[in-house]
Amino acid sequence: MTDYRRLRVALLGAGAVGSQVASLLRKHGDELADRAGATLELVGIAVRDVDAPRDVDLPRELFTTDAETLIIGADIVIELMGGIEPAREYLLQAINSGADVVTANKALLATHGPELFDAADQVGAQVYYEAAAAGAIPIIRPLRDSLAGDRVQRIMGIVNGTTNYILDRMDKEGAELGDVLADAQRLGYAEADPTADVEGYDAAQKAAILASLAFHTTVPLEMVHREGITGIDKATMDAARHAGYVIKLLAVCERLIGEPDAASGATGASASREAISVRVYPALIDRDHPLASVHGANNAVFVQAEAAGNLMFYGAGAGGVQTASAVLGDVVSAARRHIAGGVGVGESTRANLPIVPIGRVTTRYQITLEVDDQPGVLATVAGILSGGRVSIATVEQTVERDPDHDGEEGTGVARLVIGTHKALEQDLSDTVDKLAASGVVERVVSVLRVEGD
Amino acid sequence: MTDYRRLRVALLGAGAVGSQVASLLRKHGDELADRAGATLELVGIAVRDVDAPRDVDLPRELFTTDAETLIIGADIVIELMGGIEPAREYLLQAINSGADVVTANKALLATHGPELFDAADQVGAQVYYEAAAAGAIPIIRPLRDSLAGDRVQRIMGIVNGTTNYILDRMDKEGAELGDVLADAQRLGYAEADPTADVEGYDAAQKAAILASLAFHTTVPLEMVHREGITGIDKATMDAARHAGYVIKLLAVCERLIGEPDAASGATGASASREAISVRVYPALIDRDHPLASVHGANNAVFVQAEAAGNLMFYGAGAGGVQTASAVLGDVVSAARRHIAGGVGVGESTRANLPIVPIGRVTTRYQITLEVDDQPGVLATVAGILSGGRVSIATVEQTVERDPDHDGEEGTGVARLVIGTHKALEQDLSDTVDKLAASGVVERVVSVLRVEGD
Repeated sequence: MTDYRRLRVALLGAGAVGSQVASLLRKHGDELADRAGATLELVGIAVRDVDAPRDVDLPRELFTTDAETLIIGADIVIELMGGIEPAREYLLQAINSGADVVTANKALLATHGPELFDAADQVGAQVYYEAAAAGAIPIIRPLRDSLAGDRVQRIMGIVNGTTNYILDRMDKEGAELGDVLADAQRLGYAEADPTADVEGYDAAQKAAILASLAFHTTVPLEMVHREGITGIDKATMDAARHAGYVIKLLAVCERLIGEPDAASGATGASASREAISVRVYPALIDRDHPLASVHGANNAVFVQAEAAGNLMFYGAGAGGVQTASAVLGDVVSAARRHIAGGVGVGESTRANLPIVPIGRVTTRYQITLEVDDQPGVLATVAGILSGGRVSIATVEQTVERDPDHDGEEGTGVARLVIGTHKALEQDLSDTVDKLAASGVVERVVSVLRVEGD
Repeated sequence: MTDYRRLRVALLGAGAVGSQVASLLRKHGDELADRAGATLELVGIAVRDVDAPRDVDLPRELFTTDAETLIIGADIVIELMGGIEPAREYLLQAINSGADVVTANKALLATHGPELFDAADQVGAQVYYEAAAAGAIPIIRPLRDSLAGDRVQRIMGIVNGTTNYILDRMDKEGAELGDVLADAQRLGYAEADPTADVEGYDAAQKAAILASLAFHTTVPLEMVHREGITGIDKATMDAARHAGYVIKLLAVCERLIGEPDAASGATGASASREAISVRVYPALIDRDHPLASVHGANNAVFVQAEAAGNLMFYGAGAGGVQTASAVLGDVVSAARRHIAGGVGVGESTRANLPIVPIGRVTTRYQITLEVDDQPGVLATVAGILSGGRVSIATVEQTVERDPDHDGEEGTGVARLVIGTHKALEQDLSDTVDKLAASGVVERVVSVLRVEGD
C-alpha cells in the first residue's frame, strides 16, 4: 500500500448521517486514501452523549464530548450536528485554526453562510457543502463549477423528499394529506413534528443555498417566499390530475430580466436591471415535464441555463447513507486540496442581484371558484379578471345541481376552473380579492401557480 | 468594475463549439471575470483557414494559423480542433509551457488520455474535459469529485444523441432505421457519414472516459466492447415495444465482484478480485426506467453507487452552444485554480482494476427465434438452453400460419421470444450457436441484452 501523508479528520455529530460517514471512513479507508492521495484518519467524533446508541458499530474510544479540543489540530472538520449553535461556533473555530470544513447543515448555511464563507476567505480555507442542498444528488459542483461559464435562468427543484412522498401518494392513491402524512410518519418518511417539511421551511433553506450559488448573490432566508403543502387536499389533487397536471412542492429560483429598479423592492439595484426571485410553493406542472416523473421520496433539480439548455439532476434527496456519500465526496475534495496546496476558492457572490418580493413575480395560474349558477356570472368574473390585468387562457365550467331542483337554473353551484396567461402575482392577488368580494363568487377553492414553461 | 488579474486564453479550433466559446467569452467577459476572479483575455484563435466562414461574428485579427506561437505564453489553452494530431501535440506543448488545458476531444482522451494526464502531473498542471463525455451535462465533476468518497457500481449512459434520436423516432413512429437516418441527416442530427455514431464508436470513446473516472482505472479504447444500432429494424423495435421495453444504445460501465483472477483475461489482477466491464450495445430497458424517458437527441447518465444509490444526470449531449457551456465552466475552473495557486489534482487511476472481455459479463437476454411449427420444438430449444447454463425466465410463442394451409400443423412458422435469467455472455453466445445449428431453428431473429436492474 502506498505510504500517504496522513490527514486528521474530526467529525462533529453521530446521527443518521454522521454514523454512516464514520463507518464508511473506516470501512473504505484504503480506497479513500487512493482517491484522496492522503490517508484520512478519523481522530474523533464529538457527541453530546458518548454512550448513546448508534446506528452503526464504532469503537467507543473515538467518541468525545469535548468538540473544541477535537477540532484543534484537525485538517478537516466534518460538521453533521445540525442546528445553528454550537455548529456555527465550532465551524468558525475550525476555519480559524486552518482546517477545511465540510457541512450538510442547510439551516446554518441558509442563515450564516456568508459569515462562514468570509471567515474561510480570510484564511484561504474552503467550505464544502454538497450534502446541504439535495442530499446525495451532486448539484453544488455543477452549479458552482460546471455552469460557472454559463448563465442560469431558472432552477426548479423538488428538494424535500417528505413532501414529494406525500404528494406522490396523494396523486397515485387519491388519498387525503392527513392520512398519507400519518402513514409517512409511521414509515419514517416524516418526522413526528412535520412542520419543517410540510410548511416548506426545509425547502426554503435549500432554495436559498441553490439561488446563492446559481446567481452569485447572497440570498437571505427571509427573502425566500415560502408556502407549504397543507392547503392541498384530495379535491385539489384530483382536479389537477383531471387537468393533466401534477402538484409538486417546488423551489423556484429565477432570474428576472428588465426589472424596473424603483419597483424591485430591494437594495443594491443592478446596473443590468436584472433581479432574482426565490420562492417555495406547491405548483402545478405538466405531466410531460421531467419533474413530474420524480416519485416517492426522491429529489430532482431542473436547471435552465442560457447556453447549456435544460439539465436535470435526479437522485435520493435524503437518507443517512446516501447523504454520507456526498459528505465523503467533500472530504476527499478537501483532502486533495490540502495535498495540492493553494488557497480555497471563495464563493462567487459578486453579482449580488436584487431579490424581488413575490408580488413582482409573473407566472401562470389556475384559479378554481365556486360561483352561483346564475346567468351573467361568467361575464362578471371575466370582467374582474381583465380589469385586473389577468388574461384568461382557458375556462372550464361544471355545474353540480342540487338533485332536488334538477333542471332549475339558479339552484346549483357552478365550478369555474380558470387557466390564466402569465400575470403579475400582485395583480393576480388583488384580482382574487376582488373576485371573493364580488358577490357572485361563493368560494375561492384554490389558486395555484403553474410552473414548467 | 473590479481590477482583476488578466489571464491569457488561447483557443484552438473555431468550429461549431469553438466559435460559440469565442463568442461567449467576449459577450460575457465581465461576468466571467466576476466568476473566475480573473479577466479572461482571448488572445487568439488558431484555425486552418483564417478566412473560412464562421457561425458567429468574430474579429478577423483574432485568427491565426500559427497555433504553436499562440500557445506560447497562454495561461489557459482550449483545444476544440478534434482529431488526434495535431491536437495531442499542441496540448502537450501547452501543458509543458505551464498552461492548464481544456478539451472536449473525446477521441484524443480515449486514446491518449493517460499521456496527457501524466504530462500534466509532471508539471502540476490540470486537464479539464467536462465537455468530452456527455456534452453539456455535468458528469465529470460529479464522478471525479462528488462521488469520490463512494463506490460506483454501474453506469448506464445514453451518451450519443444521434442514435437516441434515431431509436426514439423508430419507437414512436414505427419507422425503419434507414428512413429515420436519412431524415436525421437532412435535419442535421446525423453526419453525412454516420458511422461514428450508428456503429457506436463515439459512445465507446465516452464509455472509456466515464469508466476511467468511475473506477479509477485506465480503460484503453480497445477494451471497450462495441456494437452499433444498424441491426435494429422496425420488427425488432415493434417486438420490444410489445414486450414493454424500449431499445436504447447504452454505454454500460460495470464493477464486477468476485471475478476469478485466472479467468479475468486481463493483466494486473486486483487483490480484491474486482474487475470491470465496459461495453456499448443496443439494449432493452423497461419503459418504467428513468432512461426510457430520455427522448430525441438528449443524453442521460444513470449512475448506481454503493452509498448514494441511484442518480441520473440529464441534458443536451451535443450542440455547439450547449457544449460551449461545459467548456466555459472548465475555463472558469482553470482560472480559479491559477488564482488560488497549488498544483493540479491528477487523475486517480490508483485502483487499476482488470477489464474483462464481453464473454465474462452476465446480463439478462431476450432471444427471438423463428422455429418450425412442429411438436417438440420448444422442448428441444429448452433443452439446448438448459444444457448451455442459460435459464429461461419467460417464453412467448406466436405462430404465423401459412394462410393456404390454415390449421395444418407443421406448415407455419412459429416465433419464440425467450427471456432469460442472468447468464454469462460466453454461455449465451455458445448456446445461440447451438440453437442455430440444431435443425429446429429456422432463423435467430435477434439476441438482445436486457439492462436496468
